[in-house]
Amino acid sequence: MTYETIIGIAAGTFTSAAMLPQLIKVIKTKETADLSITMICVLITGVSLWVYYGFLQNEIPIILSNAFSVLVNLTLLIFWFVFRK
Amino acid sequence: MTYETIIGIAAGTFTSAAMLPQLIKVIKTKETADLSITMICVLITGVSLWVYYGFLQNEIPIILSNAFSVLVNLTLLIFWFVFRK
Repeated sequence: MTYETIIGIAAGTFTSAAMLPQLIKVIKTKETADLSITMICVLITGVSLWVYYGFLQNEIPIILSNAFSVLVNLTLLIFWFVFRK
Repeated sequence: MTYETIIGIAAGTFTSAAMLPQLIKVIKTKETADLSITMICVLITGVSLWVYYGFLQNEIPIILSNAFSVLVNLTLLIFWFVFRK
């Protein structure tokens, strides 16, 4: 594995995992008032397009990391509506 | 430009732009209590690594889109501390 590949995998892991602590915070506090619903929707559109791109290029790491992001952000979207005041 | 490239550029544009509405919401409401600081820091680490990866691979679109994300998320980080109660 090249140095570039390792940096790429590290970068992808961080950006894919970033929304997980946000989701955990929302589940704990049941508060979503300060979260932008536009941000969540734009992000879901973007990571879904990355999954599609991964399929087009047949790149499993892109598919897996972004499919994980789609799941996390869809869950965040559901909780956003559940906890909306 | 191939179909794959267009999908990739669209995906990158959406994921890079996603945090912009969140930043605008924070500036408008001055409220950040529900935002996860861990999420912001992990995201900054991830997109910074993508910028570095872009330099290693000499891919201008990766450098530019992720440098934009670094800027947006650093600004969000600053406002998180400014508006912290």
